[in-house]
Amino acid sequence: MALSATNSPARCLVCRACGQEYPLIAQHACFECFGPLEVGYDQAALNKVTREQIEAGPQNIWRYAPLLPAGQDPASRVTLDPGLTPLIRADRLAAELGMTGTLWVKDDSANPTHSFKDRVVSVALTAAKELGFTRFACASTGNLANSVAAHAARAGVPSIVFIPSDLEQGKIITTAVYGGELVAIEGSYDDVNRLCGELTETDAFEDTAFVNVNVRPYYAEGSKTLGYEVAEQLGWRLPAQVVAPMASGELLTKIDKAFEELVEIGLVAESSWKVFGAQSKGCDPIATALRDGKDEITPVKPTGIAKSLNIGDPAAGPFALESVRRTGGWMDSVTDDEIRDGIELLARTTGVFAETAGGVTVAVLKKLVESGRLDPTAETVVYNTGEGLKTLDAVADRVGPTHRVKPSLRAAREAGLL
Amino acid sequence: MALSATNSPARCLVCRACGQEYPLIAQHACFECFGPLEVGYDQAALNKVTREQIEAGPQNIWRYAPLLPAGQDPASRVTLDPGLTPLIRADRLAAELGMTGTLWVKDDSANPTHSFKDRVVSVALTAAKELGFTRFACASTGNLANSVAAHAARAGVPSIVFIPSDLEQGKIITTAVYGGELVAIEGSYDDVNRLCGELTETDAFEDTAFVNVNVRPYYAEGSKTLGYEVAEQLGWRLPAQVVAPMASGELLTKIDKAFEELVEIGLVAESSWKVFGAQSKGCDPIATALRDGKDEITPVKPTGIAKSLNIGDPAAGPFALESVRRTGGWMDSVTDDEIRDGIELLARTTGVFAETAGGVTVAVLKKLVESGRLDPTAETVVYNTGEGLKTLDAVADRVGPTHRVKPSLRAAREAGLL
Repeated sequence: MALSATNSPARCLVCRACGQEYPLIAQHACFECFGPLEVGYDQAALNKVTREQIEAGPQNIWRYAPLLPAGQDPASRVTLDPGLTPLIRADRLAAELGMTGTLWVKDDSANPTHSFKDRVVSVALTAAKELGFTRFACASTGNLANSVAAHAARAGVPSIVFIPSDLEQGKIITTAVYGGELVAIEGSYDDVNRLCGELTETDAFEDTAFVNVNVRPYYAEGSKTLGYEVAEQLGWRLPAQVVAPMASGELLTKIDKAFEELVEIGLVAESSWKVFGAQSKGCDPIATALRDGKDEITPVKPTGIAKSLNIGDPAAGPFALESVRRTGGWMDSVTDDEIRDGIELLARTTGVFAETAGGVTVAVLKKLVESGRLDPTAETVVYNTGEGLKTLDAVADRVGPTHRVKPSLRAAREAGLL
Repeated sequence: MALSATNSPARCLVCRACGQEYPLIAQHACFECFGPLEVGYDQAALNKVTREQIEAGPQNIWRYAPLLPAGQDPASRVTLDPGLTPLIRADRLAAELGMTGTLWVKDDSANPTHSFKDRVVSVALTAAKELGFTRFACASTGNLANSVAAHAARAGVPSIVFIPSDLEQGKIITTAVYGGELVAIEGSYDDVNRLCGELTETDAFEDTAFVNVNVRPYYAEGSKTLGYEVAEQLGWRLPAQVVAPMASGELLTKIDKAFEELVEIGLVAESSWKVFGAQSKGCDPIATALRDGKDEITPVKPTGIAKSLNIGDPAAGPFALESVRRTGGWMDSVTDDEIRDGIELLARTTGVFAETAGGVTVAVLKKLVESGRLDPTAETVVYNTGEGLKTLDAVADRVGPTHRVKPSLRAAREAGLL
């Protein structure tokens, strides 16, 4: 079955490697060259989209439905209505980093299940429903599991979620509570992902949409909304620099793609922007390739506390390299202790408590300023993609009560509070 | 110093017991009768407020600034910009409960620090800043601590937060990470609250606003926005029934007050509504007074898992009784196991993962339907005031992976997945 949503601007799937086109079906790799597929659009349809049309839309990602492959009809949506998360002016963070240009934090922990994954899941499952799938699934390091299980619960559709069995207890509970099937796999995320790829080929999973496997091209488009929103929230213009975390590398490339689309359609004035990528030292195959001047990514075995970014064989790594090189940006990676410092720095200067991925991004921002790779005088947006409540262990040993006293004025006085 | 915000509709503080009026200062009890004070408004100023004016405002609580005591000037606000949280149509939950009227979940876990406390803290600290305070504080069971510490971090103002030392580790970390002072008191919440009352009288705390002590009248007004938003989100009309959790009892009375104001101002058509209150069996002094037909609340020593509702001596209890009796509603309380059932029921039918307080409210809703106290054919709004990630322990023993397998098709087949 192929996608046939009324008013969808999507025209085909197209291979990012060889350019081969396919109908809008559930397929993620090119039959010719095995390259990854992405959604191709009818440019004339995109060109008709206006700022006024978007501004008249709902206060969530669906205001950008005219730029997405599915969900144009509100009744067709499988969604928790994520998006339009806060863009927070971070003057105190900028001051601590020695930045004089305006610094913004795009805080995607404000989404319904508290990560940017709600965006991609909403678009993927809306497409999946139109494609005739009757069960929702994913391979996940945690945030995606939360989001798919919650979306399925809201929609009343069965779900089956696959996770590595050594995942943090918090992310297991936060998936299991929604009541779908939850399969703990004794292996790494890359093992889980491989098994899910195999399962999609079996009869028993014929009715099952794996958001990040067989409907991945639609899923990936959801990340474009992180670019659209920043541009709209800045008053329909692009920032000079953006810093985003990298797991598969897809998020960063889709923010870049969103900016390109907005310029091409004429929704923002043409301006130059630079894209910066952030990884942890425990899993930095994309940043390593950039530093070494290579086009190919050498897979790694991930370690370290930034589990939501721990994809050792990042599918979109080459495209992330391309975005960063084309725009004149850079990538860097940070240690677990720098990640913890990043979480605390963001929290005490902005009131935003990020998960480890956000700590990675803020710590890399700091490093990029110090190394001179990022211009501290230019306007910059840093993306926080997840919620600190999901990775409390990262800072549990570092923060706590500053005083412990008995409930009396005398005890308060002895503790130096008076 | 008295509040003197330009364009504020607030006129005075007024005693809820004897009616005595005071200027808009930092004071929470009547000098004459020790009754609690609340904000009195200039009715002529409120009457000028229009739907169009509100709809043209920002996508947060400040769209209702013309109905609040402070924050009319955006530059004066001390805020994370909470509010306009989702009102979710919960058809599947309604069906499970045997309700045929439309059921809505007002999901306040979507606020910046993931509880309704961001609303009251934003209003309290904005007033506190105008009143000249230079340090922010609170006595808290957890959610309020998170919110005050985060607001202070965003504003760059010192904070000092008081909590019972036996609080869940998660709520301690989520406060401490923002970097303010955090004082663990070896006692109950009621002990913490008493000490904070005493501290406000000392010279060392002269510069300190305790959001729920010396600036409490302003704080309490923030809860009105939970009533305004539901009315606006329903298309400027009131629901027939609302179910809200009760700790101090203030939230419920302020939702009721918001509905009364909207009718009086003419922003919604007059209609009747019923207010229902929810407590846990471990701390149900208000529901007990209602059941026993009493006007006075007998304080209790709280127990049970719904810690955020564990206020044994609820300051606004008599006013909650009055709201429920006047509107023809009711109150009930539920056991810890019913609370856990409530959390799971809400999660699997709506995709909303609530903290224990939300479990209390959903479980009481179920009980009210079963007992016939609540009309299952009438439109109903149930309030979820907090986030499940903060109270994972409540369901940790109940939910988990449904399967555990090795990463191979063969293992998946043996586990019955194929």
